[in-house]
Amino acid sequence: MTRDPKYDVLFEPVEVGPKTTKNRFWQTPHCNGAGSDRPGTQAAFRGMKAEGGWGTVCIEYTAVHPESDDAPHCCARLWDEVDVMNLGHVADEVHKHGGLAGIQLFYAGIHSQTGESRAIARVPSQAPSEAILANGVAEADEDDIRDIVQMHVDASLRARDAGFDVIEIIASDSMIVLQFLQPFYNRRTDGYGGSFENRARLWIEILEGMKEAVGSDCAIGNRFSVDTLEGPDGIEVGEDGIRMIELCARQGLCDVWDLKVGHYSELSGEIAPSRFTRTNYMAPWVREAKAASPVPVVSTGRLTSPDDMVEVIVSGQADLIGAARPSIADPFLPRKIEEGRPEDIRECIGCNVCLSKWAQAVPLICTQNATSMEEYRRGWHPEKFTKTKSPCSVLVVGAGPAGLECARVLGERGYDVHLREAEAEIGGRVRDIMRYPGLAEWGRVITYRQIQLDKLKNVEVHTGVGRMSADDVLAYGADKVVCATGARWAEDGFGPVLMAPLAGADASLPHVATPEQVMAGKDIGERVVVLDCEGYFTGVSMAELLADQGKKVTLVTSWDFVAPYTAYSFEFVDIMRMLHEKKIEPVVQHAALSVEPGRITLFYIYRDGYVRTTTPKRGVPARRMGTETVTLECDGVVLVTARLSQNGLFKELKARRDEWAANDIQAVYQVGDCQAPRLIADCVFEGHRLAREFESDDPQHPLPWIRERQIWGHEAFPKLAG
Amino acid sequence: MTRDPKYDVLFEPVEVGPKTTKNRFWQTPHCNGAGSDRPGTQAAFRGMKAEGGWGTVCIEYTAVHPESDDAPHCCARLWDEVDVMNLGHVADEVHKHGGLAGIQLFYAGIHSQTGESRAIARVPSQAPSEAILANGVAEADEDDIRDIVQMHVDASLRARDAGFDVIEIIASDSMIVLQFLQPFYNRRTDGYGGSFENRARLWIEILEGMKEAVGSDCAIGNRFSVDTLEGPDGIEVGEDGIRMIELCARQGLCDVWDLKVGHYSELSGEIAPSRFTRTNYMAPWVREAKAASPVPVVSTGRLTSPDDMVEVIVSGQADLIGAARPSIADPFLPRKIEEGRPEDIRECIGCNVCLSKWAQAVPLICTQNATSMEEYRRGWHPEKFTKTKSPCSVLVVGAGPAGLECARVLGERGYDVHLREAEAEIGGRVRDIMRYPGLAEWGRVITYRQIQLDKLKNVEVHTGVGRMSADDVLAYGADKVVCATGARWAEDGFGPVLMAPLAGADASLPHVATPEQVMAGKDIGERVVVLDCEGYFTGVSMAELLADQGKKVTLVTSWDFVAPYTAYSFEFVDIMRMLHEKKIEPVVQHAALSVEPGRITLFYIYRDGYVRTTTPKRGVPARRMGTETVTLECDGVVLVTARLSQNGLFKELKARRDEWAANDIQAVYQVGDCQAPRLIADCVFEGHRLAREFESDDPQHPLPWIRERQIWGHEAFPKLAG
Repeated sequence: MTRDPKYDVLFEPVEVGPKTTKNRFWQTPHCNGAGSDRPGTQAAFRGMKAEGGWGTVCIEYTAVHPESDDAPHCCARLWDEVDVMNLGHVADEVHKHGGLAGIQLFYAGIHSQTGESRAIARVPSQAPSEAILANGVAEADEDDIRDIVQMHVDASLRARDAGFDVIEIIASDSMIVLQFLQPFYNRRTDGYGGSFENRARLWIEILEGMKEAVGSDCAIGNRFSVDTLEGPDGIEVGEDGIRMIELCARQGLCDVWDLKVGHYSELSGEIAPSRFTRTNYMAPWVREAKAASPVPVVSTGRLTSPDDMVEVIVSGQADLIGAARPSIADPFLPRKIEEGRPEDIRECIGCNVCLSKWAQAVPLICTQNATSMEEYRRGWHPEKFTKTKSPCSVLVVGAGPAGLECARVLGERGYDVHLREAEAEIGGRVRDIMRYPGLAEWGRVITYRQIQLDKLKNVEVHTGVGRMSADDVLAYGADKVVCATGARWAEDGFGPVLMAPLAGADASLPHVATPEQVMAGKDIGERVVVLDCEGYFTGVSMAELLADQGKKVTLVTSWDFVAPYTAYSFEFVDIMRMLHEKKIEPVVQHAALSVEPGRITLFYIYRDGYVRTTTPKRGVPARRMGTETVTLECDGVVLVTARLSQNGLFKELKARRDEWAANDIQAVYQVGDCQAPRLIADCVFEGHRLAREFESDDPQHPLPWIRERQIWGHEAFPKLAG
Repeated sequence: MTRDPKYDVLFEPVEVGPKTTKNRFWQTPHCNGAGSDRPGTQAAFRGMKAEGGWGTVCIEYTAVHPESDDAPHCCARLWDEVDVMNLGHVADEVHKHGGLAGIQLFYAGIHSQTGESRAIARVPSQAPSEAILANGVAEADEDDIRDIVQMHVDASLRARDAGFDVIEIIASDSMIVLQFLQPFYNRRTDGYGGSFENRARLWIEILEGMKEAVGSDCAIGNRFSVDTLEGPDGIEVGEDGIRMIELCARQGLCDVWDLKVGHYSELSGEIAPSRFTRTNYMAPWVREAKAASPVPVVSTGRLTSPDDMVEVIVSGQADLIGAARPSIADPFLPRKIEEGRPEDIRECIGCNVCLSKWAQAVPLICTQNATSMEEYRRGWHPEKFTKTKSPCSVLVVGAGPAGLECARVLGERGYDVHLREAEAEIGGRVRDIMRYPGLAEWGRVITYRQIQLDKLKNVEVHTGVGRMSADDVLAYGADKVVCATGARWAEDGFGPVLMAPLAGADASLPHVATPEQVMAGKDIGERVVVLDCEGYFTGVSMAELLADQGKKVTLVTSWDFVAPYTAYSFEFVDIMRMLHEKKIEPVVQHAALSVEPGRITLFYIYRDGYVRTTTPKRGVPARRMGTETVTLECDGVVLVTARLSQNGLFKELKARRDEWAANDIQAVYQVGDCQAPRLIADCVFEGHRLAREFESDDPQHPLPWIRERQIWGHEAFPKLAG
């Protein structure tokens, strides 16, 4: 197939300073957890995107100096010659596929963590960060400012030596040049504070230094939050935003503007989840800024549809289609458009689980793309699959995220697959979740796989077949069986605080419901308590759904604040605003003791215990039980307490192992929530992994992978496994 | 000098299974952030303790398998032959100094994070962890249990091959064997659940496997939380605690019991801060358990005094003095006792800042010992100092933590040092802090340095000299000057939310006070609001101090929960209990808008902003300003909003640089809070670093250090710098 001519505009080359990017697909910098210390992983990850057609592929944020060490978060670094060697390998991999390699320099200033270096960051004006605990920074004098400029110049030279074509500096996420530009952070009275020109001076000096050092070899760009969405406290596009673009234009200091909006302490503005924003949500600001720019402009905003991308270009919003998350979900997005099969694009769902892993200081994962970060260590290619040498028939029981992905990959690998789903539609738990407020895009987990399964002639999908018994499976005639029968919310309030059923909690009663029952329409009255032990999206989604129905909702959680996992996925701030706007009352640090008609009884989890005794008291239950209680009047309770595997089928089949041979069954596996109730991303991953490793000695358990690390007394990179 | 005979008992050798540890000093396993991936750092850190006289030195918790990957937290791993190579280097360094090398194996079960491996942990009974968000685990069947046993056996063989003498398994911190032992986690009805024997079965099988595999080569130990301090919900020493010790004794399965108390979700029981517990706080439980043990018992509990240690031994509480934190604060603790100079011991202050770094997934630091984790990368020895080749006179202005440490190290290095303190006593901000409730031990920051300075004949300490002006310094006659003039709490309510002074907040008014003023006795009335933007110990300390004076206290913070940094230092849970017991009312997620006599006006920080609009609203200040407000009636407000450097002296001296030569001044530096208001540990570190690097080209800024990492296309360990 060839591409639809309406998409031709996306494949036009664009001049960027001294370089030309081959098309309009620009993978904007984003973190992945490999930094400069795991060069194999970083190079394979970025190289895959170049192979997938991205004209420019940038690595993640790169610290110019130990003062900008971001540990515990993983960033790349350009501090020494080993960093040049390691990142040079990354640039090489991008070049192999005809891409330009980009890098993004940062100096974190007031938000520095320096957890590894212990260095002291320098800032426009001394103050505690509003976002980082207990860091402590020094006010820069003019010597310090010269140092900061020089750090950027030195890092640019290293970036050039490593082979990078495009060097951006971060003028977003509240990094140093934005801190100088913003009066909120800059209270200086010298030549670097006060007027716009003064506040912009550091930024201009850095660009001048970089242009002089590497301007003829590399394109120089600015990743600019052209509006920090803070009103007059921040950068506004119509004020300093455009002023800055015009200033750089006059001086010829910028070859490309990579624009976004938002600010550091609320990355939800910059990396907005689908829960609260739609595709191309940055358009109004970018369009306004673009009008002032004589050089190409990059626009991001979770664009996954080629039609939307064309509109961005032809409407004059931008010259280049920026993408971080869409390029993670599908490294081959441009290639699929080029090959005339845009329906194969694996669209980002905007869940931000990728970012949630950066926030937790571990490598990126992706709900849609199980091969993310596995390109090097496990050797997985997102679009290529080894055909099996021992084809056989496989019965996959259950078409939730794990079953769907397992069936898809087994199909790609040439197995004869029967995917059987009890319910009328495929999707498993995602069918409910996509109907939670704001989570419709999460349904793409299903639609992508539906389309792929439809194309695989060796995969049959049977829906509405009812629950299979062990007898059904034994008699089915498949050589191998994969149980992907999912998990269910506990119906008795079993949860992690008491590790026992909750007294009086029984979802067969009219005043008690599980999330599944709520989605099936069970009404438990007007005053509802949502009891959340999960701490992620289910509790807040139930609360919002019920509040939208006009109910009075109280959200009770034993965690220290509402939905703590959403702080990692950068949904938290807007969730808190949503609760406030919809008058949902949060009750934190409380667990439930019992449920009765008309009320729920709670206890404060930090009530009991010892305070400054010579030795701790003996025999006092630390977080559990208690005598003082709090009673809330309510008509009904939603139990978001624990998801439990529905693994009865697998257990029975395993118990009847001696019957397998007689039924020509060679193996039975479990996968997804059926094995362990985990993130959707983890279920998709396990389904994928099982199918990739289907011929290993023990497919139920992962094969070792390559671990990148210092090796004592040995050469650096034997292909040793973990 | 030689040791006092009363301490002889501490230097008796002790047989531990097939090994003999040369004395009773047992460095219990503790994390440091080097794991098995930074072997140079790990080996130098542990080797230093062996050099310092610890008879047995253990490395940190070591995962037996990728299913027990603890990422983001750094643990050691024994998964493959590279781990054996890397950890073998660690064991070698310990052996060089005559120590036994110990290791501690773990499988985390229900609390597994597997942030790097993505593997699925297996557990006695499926449930969400009460402490880890969104992990998801699988219930182990009997095949799985065999796998878990085998993982421990395999790891033991690798530990033996790496050269370890003592192999402990973690039966504390709620790791797998304790999860099986505890009915709270174990609801099985098969041979591994129910009766004590059944619940202990996995543990026994693991010990049997290890004994058979390596029992003749290595001592096998159990790190056992003999009472989890949960009452009947947990392990009680008089019940399953002693039962377990007796069972192992009958079967000859344990060579050493390394005992502690507490449980996973409250490490404050196991790693108790000085704020809430005293030295040897585990004594009652350990003494009771010891009576049942035929093999040596290790007892921990922040023991730093040799007299206390002797008491532990002669009273029959234990056979070996376990120490993690005291060995971090002073790796040479045993040697100092042996050499008859116990007054030189750098005593742990029990602040848990070490643990707070593990909790944040970065390398350990120590308030007392600036050389911690710098032994390899910066080549620092805690007790050895390079004599300067260019001795000169140095004036250190200010005797807070940074000034004290800088003067001490400069003194050790042979400089002629004058340390001048404006106040009547040395100590700086620690003089106040040690009078905060429960923080008396923090005063050891001062006492250790006082004793050392008294011994250094080339250091003069002048106290009560008043503030030095720039003229005073220029005229003083020193060759070099170090400004260590500290920081002060903002007197106008300047803080990180508004980044501006707070309307009406003025510490010269009778109803407003800074923490310094509170400590100086300023009384601002009976109903007090403590406004905390720091999020660490100051706000809660002010609140407790004032509540102890009988005042009605409200603690307001803009963070999502009270004192979030104390969650890292494992003080949080008991702080919450303290607030509850002392009726201090917390108000979270609120910032102040103004202070007036009789009231403070707050706003909810998540009130404003956008909820599910197509695009974010424009120009809405995200966290700042607002129209809806909350007013609290109060008599006075304590401003814990920002610490600001008192760097006027340094700035003036720098501005008058052209006068230095005429006054024979070669250089002027700033250090500690005077440069950047940071943790006490960081101030001590910077004071130490500046003195170590005093002859570098630019001592104000750190020299590069060795970075351990994968290197692409290069041998593994060039001594390249960062």
